[in-house]
Order: sequence, then C-alpha cells, then structure tokens
Amino acid sequence: MGVRCLALSDGKLRYFFEPRSVAVLGASRQTRKFGHTIFKNFVRSGYHGKVYPINPSADEILGHKVYPSLADVPGPVDLAVIAIPAPLVTQAFHECIEKGVKAVVVISGGFKEAGPEGIKRETELTRLAEESGVRLIGPNCIGVFDPRSHVDTLFLPSYRLKRPLAGEIAFITQSGAFGSAVLDWAAAKNVGISKFVSFGNMADVSESELLEFLSEDADTKCIVAYLEGVRDGLHFLKVARRVTTLKPLVILKGGTTSAGQLATLSHTGSLAGDPALISGIFNQLGIIQAHNVEGLFDAARALAYQPLPKGPRLAIVTNAGGFGVLASDHAERAGIPMTKLSSKTKDELREVVPPNSSLSNPVDLTGSANEDDYARVLHIIAKDPDVHMLLVMVLVQTSSIESDVVDILTEINETYSEKPLLACTVGGEYTESTLRMLEDNRIPSFPSPARAVTAVRALWDYAYYRKNLVPQSTRRRRKRR
Amino acid sequence: MGVRCLALSDGKLRYFFEPRSVAVLGASRQTRKFGHTIFKNFVRSGYHGKVYPINPSADEILGHKVYPSLADVPGPVDLAVIAIPAPLVTQAFHECIEKGVKAVVVISGGFKEAGPEGIKRETELTRLAEESGVRLIGPNCIGVFDPRSHVDTLFLPSYRLKRPLAGEIAFITQSGAFGSAVLDWAAAKNVGISKFVSFGNMADVSESELLEFLSEDADTKCIVAYLEGVRDGLHFLKVARRVTTLKPLVILKGGTTSAGQLATLSHTGSLAGDPALISGIFNQLGIIQAHNVEGLFDAARALAYQPLPKGPRLAIVTNAGGFGVLASDHAERAGIPMTKLSSKTKDELREVVPPNSSLSNPVDLTGSANEDDYARVLHIIAKDPDVHMLLVMVLVQTSSIESDVVDILTEINETYSEKPLLACTVGGEYTESTLRMLEDNRIPSFPSPARAVTAVRALWDYAYYRKNLVPQSTRRRRKRR
Repeated sequence: MGVRCLALSDGKLRYFFEPRSVAVLGASRQTRKFGHTIFKNFVRSGYHGKVYPINPSADEILGHKVYPSLADVPGPVDLAVIAIPAPLVTQAFHECIEKGVKAVVVISGGFKEAGPEGIKRETELTRLAEESGVRLIGPNCIGVFDPRSHVDTLFLPSYRLKRPLAGEIAFITQSGAFGSAVLDWAAAKNVGISKFVSFGNMADVSESELLEFLSEDADTKCIVAYLEGVRDGLHFLKVARRVTTLKPLVILKGGTTSAGQLATLSHTGSLAGDPALISGIFNQLGIIQAHNVEGLFDAARALAYQPLPKGPRLAIVTNAGGFGVLASDHAERAGIPMTKLSSKTKDELREVVPPNSSLSNPVDLTGSANEDDYARVLHIIAKDPDVHMLLVMVLVQTSSIESDVVDILTEINETYSEKPLLACTVGGEYTESTLRMLEDNRIPSFPSPARAVTAVRALWDYAYYRKNLVPQSTRRRRKRR
Repeated sequence: MGVRCLALSDGKLRYFFEPRSVAVLGASRQTRKFGHTIFKNFVRSGYHGKVYPINPSADEILGHKVYPSLADVPGPVDLAVIAIPAPLVTQAFHECIEKGVKAVVVISGGFKEAGPEGIKRETELTRLAEESGVRLIGPNCIGVFDPRSHVDTLFLPSYRLKRPLAGEIAFITQSGAFGSAVLDWAAAKNVGISKFVSFGNMADVSESELLEFLSEDADTKCIVAYLEGVRDGLHFLKVARRVTTLKPLVILKGGTTSAGQLATLSHTGSLAGDPALISGIFNQLGIIQAHNVEGLFDAARALAYQPLPKGPRLAIVTNAGGFGVLASDHAERAGIPMTKLSSKTKDELREVVPPNSSLSNPVDLTGSANEDDYARVLHIIAKDPDVHMLLVMVLVQTSSIESDVVDILTEINETYSEKPLLACTVGGEYTESTLRMLEDNRIPSFPSPARAVTAVRALWDYAYYRKNLVPQSTRRRRKRR
C-alpha cells in the first residue's frame, strides 16, 4: 500500500473512468437483473467504446451478440463489470486477469458484509488483485458513474435514479444507497458531477486512493465523500492533507456518535473514531466537515463554483426583510461577521434603492424591488472592499421580480469574479426552477437562509485554511514542482 | 388590552375568516395592482359570500359592478380589504366604521415602518379601531388566507404564489414576505393549512390575540408563528402558556442574535430579547422553538398529524444502511435514545426479514427489501412496547420498492394510531412525489435524516411538557371546565 500511496497518479485508476472497452459479466435479458440495467446503461448512455455482454446462457441482449465467457471476446477489454452471484465472482476475476483486463468493478454483494464465508471470498479477491495488479472497485457497491465518458455501472434504472449532468464535483461514497439517493437529488437540482464512485467494501481500491486520483483530476474542482470508516487511518490523514492543498474536500462522516457507530458496525463493518477527535482532525487538515446530507453538497457547490473569499465579512441583499433577519441570525451563529458598509457605499446606495429600503446590512430593498434595482445595488456593494462575500436573497413570489434576475445575478457573478456570490430563495415550484437556473449558471443557490449560511461558512473555513494553515512543508514542496 | 385577553373567543376575529360579504377597496382593472389580484382571488377562489369591488374611477371589473364608495354598497359588509395608498387609508377606515364593517385588513404599507408621517397615520388607525371596535389586521401585511372559506387577501397572483390545500396547521407571521414564501413552499409539498395570517404592524390585532383565537379554532391542530418581536411581552407569555396547554405552538423567532436584532430594527422595528433568555422562556412555556425555516413546518407537521409519544425512545427501519447510520447520529445528538429491541421482537423479526438484514436498531432491511418486507417488519416493531416513536426510511431508487409502500405506511400509521410514525426518503423527482403522497396521508415525511430527527425531537419535547411541566394551576382550571 505504501507504494501505491506514493504513486500519485496510478494510471490504472483511469481505466475505471475512461475505458476503451467494457465487458458486463452477468448481462441478462431479464430486465430486473442488475446485469441487464448495467449493460443497457452502456448501450444507451452514449458510451463511445465497445461493450460486450458476457453470459453463458444467452445469445443476444438488446441486439448485441452475447459472449459465453470473457475469453471469447475478440478484442481487448479495459473494464469488466461483474454482477453475478458472490460464489462465482472469484472465478470471474481469474478470467479477468487472464484476459488482461485493467480494471474491475464488482457490484455483487455477499462478501465481507455477509459473515465468515463472505470474508473468505473477499480476502481471496484482495489477494488476487494485489498479485495481478488488476485494480478492483467493490465488492458490494454500485460502482462508477462518469457523465463525460458515460461509464455507468449503476444498476438502478434511470426512471428511478436520474443521472446528473457533467459538472465539477466528484463524489465518492462508502454506502451505495447513500450515493444513489444523493446522485438522484443532484440530478433534480441541476448539480453537476465530475466523477462518482461507490466503493463498497474496498477489497482493493480504497477511499484514500480515490481521493488522490480525484485531487489530480482536471474535471474535478471539489471532492465530496460519505465515509463511515477508512481503511488505514494514518494513511488517510496523509492523503487528506495533500488533497486539501490542491482542492477542497468536504466529508460527511457517518457514525460520529455511539448510536451511529453501532449502526455502522452492522452496515459497513467500519469501526469509527471519537466524534470530537474527528472534528478536530478535520479542522487541522482543512477538511470541511458536513454535519448532514444537505450540508455535503451545499458546501461543495459553493467551493466548486466560487472563488475563495479574502476575508470573512458578508453582505446580504434581500427583498424580504424577514429572510434578511434570519440570515443575519445564522451568520452570527456561524461566526461570520456582517460587513459594516462604508459611508461611501451607503451614499451611493441611497441614490438607487427603492423607497423605504434599509441601507444597513442586510440591505433590504423591500418587496417592491425589481431585478434592475438588484443590478444597481449589487454593482455598488460588490465594489465595497470590506465586502468579502455576497449573499443575495430574492423572493420570486412578488410580481415586481422577473426571471431576468437570473441573468442579472449571473452578470454580477462574472463581473466580480474574485468575490464569492451565493443566492437564496424560498418557496415552491417557481422558486425551485429559479434555483435550478441559478445553479446552471454556477451560482450556488439555496432554498433556505440556514443552508446558504452553512455554505458561506464552508467557503471562509477553507479560505482561512489555505491562507493560514496549510503546512509549510507542503507549500514549499508544491512550489518546487 | 387586558379585557381582550380575557375574552378568549372574541367573536369579531372570526369575521376575518368567515365573512358573509367582502368589500375590496382599491379593486382595480390594472392587473399589476394589488387590489386587482385581491379582488380576483375572491371572485375565482370559490368564496361563497358577496364580493364588492370599490373604486371611484371604474365601472366594472371582471364582470362585476364597481361601487364608487363603501356607502354605495347595497347590503352589509363583514370584511373590508384596503389596498390603496397610505394617505387615503384613514378616510377609508372611517367609511368602514360608518358602514358597520366588522373587520378590516389593511394591506397598504407606508405606516409605522415608514418614518414619522407613517407613525402618525398608524397611531390614528389604532385609535379609530379601539374606539369603534372595528377590528383591524395590518397595516403593511399580506393579510388573511383561509383555504376552507376561500378568504384570500394575498396580493400575489397564484401563478407566482401557489395556495396550499386545507389542512390542520395555522400559520401566523409578522413578515409578509416570509409568509408568502412559506405558503408557496407548503403548497408545493402538499402541506395543508387551516388559517394563515400575515399581521404586519399590529396596529390593532396582535400576535397574542391571533394565538388565542387559533388555540380555540376547531380546524387547527398545531400553530406555527414567525415572530421578530411581540407587542406586549408579559401578555404574550400568559397567552402562550395557555395556548400550549391546548395545542402545540411552534415559533421561529427572527432576531435572536445581535446581527439579527439589528436587522429587525429596520424591518419590523421590533426590539428583540436575549437569545438564551428566549430559548429558556420557550422551554418553560412548552413552546417548540424552530431554529430555521425548515424546522418550523417540520416540527408542525409531526405535531399536527401524529399522536404524542409515551416516551422518548425511537426505532428506525431502513433499506439504506448509510441513512440509518446518519439518523442514529442525529438522534443521539438530539438527545433521543434508540430503543434496544427486545429479544422477542428480534426473534419475530428474524423470521421475516430479507437475508443479510441487521436486527439491531436501526433495523436495516438492505436494498433488496420490498414493500411487503416493510409491512411485516413494521407490524412487529410497532408492537414492541419499548418503541415510542417509529422513523421509517425508504429509499425509492431501488427497483424492489413499489409505490404501494405509501399504502403500507398509511395502514401501519392507522393501525398503530397511538404511536407516532414519521418517514424519510432522500432523492430527486420520484422521491419528491413519494414525499407528497405520504404527506397527503398525514405521515410527516422528510427529505433528510437531520430534518426527520428534528421533528422527532419536537414530538418528544412537547409530549414531555404536556406530561410533566404543564403548570398545575392550568391543569386544574382546564379540568373544571
């Protein structure tokens, strides 16, 4: 493992995401079988390479010739996806080695998580992978999704689990179910993904190795992870420290309480550490700790789309006083100070705001503000050097706001590209579509003030770490390269 | 004011919700005017009483004859809605008094919130209301919405602001914008409302009076409020204590930090109290304090739909291990203990669960569980006397779960009607529609484990208060009635 950790870019991991050819072992004509869905994903998703269905008892699936075994496949195979009963997996892995397959995803369950017999099977898989050098993700996972190459081993049909578009956020998860639910959520909210890996039992490829790989992945601007435990604690710490000098890393750690730890024992079999210790370590390593499912991608979207702030001070602009009040409350609780706007800024604002506006921070434009009021006001506030971050709250229920407000925020965001801008709007269907439009323009947008402020805090936490706490040795090493 | 507080059911408040006739002062042919939308609401929403548009410079609006003044209206008028410029409101209120109107909603802004001239206007309105006995909600508000009587003074068109269906939750708010956004949210999520009031500047009817009225309203099972300040602190405390002996009261207090308080000054002009003090007082009075927008209705839905638990212990059933782990974490942090399932319960479970399930709590049925597995398992767990509350997590991305799961949860919920049941499911579009279906069957349902557990905690907090902390004097008084 020591060797792997030093080999920062183990070339073989890229075969999981950019294979030139894929074989699906367990591809089936029966639509409810995992192997059927996985094979169909490759056929229908726009994957450009060759796909071979492998099944000793079928001739043809979805118009494709089926091969009885891997050995029968005419060309080379980069990636094999194994979705067959656990007792047959070891033999299939042997065939992968013989065929010269580079990377294998084992979807099948029935290993470490399933008692003594399973543990034996998994130990054997680990041994085979290490001896052969064939890399293995899984078993007991939903595998890999890459929206650019269209690798998609998710065995859940897309009418159940929508696939997100290509984006900047890489997402790795120990729990496949967690991963599937959050991917589905991301698709609905227009949140783009760079690469997704559900890594299951980690018989071979570990969470740390994936983190290293993703830290060097050009498509990935921010990494998020759901972890219950890690394979090798000390190694993980080393890797995480390196990763956070390159890009932000947001982690939701399941099992940070004794009740949660008990639950992880029966779930992934992970043994988890002390909660306070974990928070302390995360802080020291510059890892942003999410405290709930929402917080994971809320922090990630802010970090992936926006620049790091030069300071902690926040300005809020709103057309709804109550939400300005609540956001101020959340900011203070999160330790984020509100900018005291300069008299110059206030004088300029006075010229352009609607009647009865409040010029202190939060700047409350009242319900009569239209999108042009926002434009004028935001241009002024964004120029105030003491405003380090901007939170724009826009209730779209009021008739004075047209959907052009999305274009206006996008323009402000692009004009003041060195200053983080976040948006918040609360409501029903029309609000949801506004949120999706803002997201599409890479403005991290939130359905409540509390969630917006959590993201603000994550931005400042990571900015502070990068500015003040990145270990000197790492800095020097990076400069030398 | 003392007198009003003793007159628990001031008959006149009901004219706001069940007027036999309504006049809209400022009804207009111009579709962007507030008066136009308000008049249209009454015409189109199914309101059964008479509606009179009042406007000195129009003959006909939406096919209805327009009256130049209130005095010209042929029949009696119970409710007048005033949506005309502030300087004209006092005169209009005089006309309401002369006409014998019972209740007036003043939508118009330009009063206390708008400087010395506005304060003068508002003082005059207060005086007129007190002297005449004509009750007044507002000014500077969006007024009243009652989905049963179809009173709807919201000046926001329904394509912007969807109206929720009739339900059990009453919602009062100091901030109109807050109210509109949350109503819109409620409509999208299928959350029903009994009565809604945005009460604005409280020139006459105060938050406390509304709370008292709603505490005796048969349609209302739970009251939620967004408050920045209260008109009379001591009076509010007395009222709140009485309300919480009758039904749950959930409050989100804006301005609980110094930054937030500063913001309320320019918003509603409220002076707010010390945050720790507020939490302490809320606790003592049995008020459930929401800490963010989400928490307000999450707590309310649990309290409105479900019985109070007999104890704090929670059982979790899931088909996704990761979410079981996270829910356990949140429960422990919220001080909610997990039930240790009895060996009898475990023995019964062992007979029916899918392979590889975990029988400790959380009970993890694994991704292969179908809706019938849930039925069998929930029947067993609900019978365990040590399970006081049930949280059912169902990821619907997996192919094994059919939408029948909604019927099954509904049946369990009805069969064990003395035990609170909550549901949680995480994901995208299909998940959202599952949440709406569950909501429709009065199962409080949440898009994340953290939010579900907040609601669990609210249930237990209120149950504990009702069981142990309701002041003895109040108990005796209630029994005597």
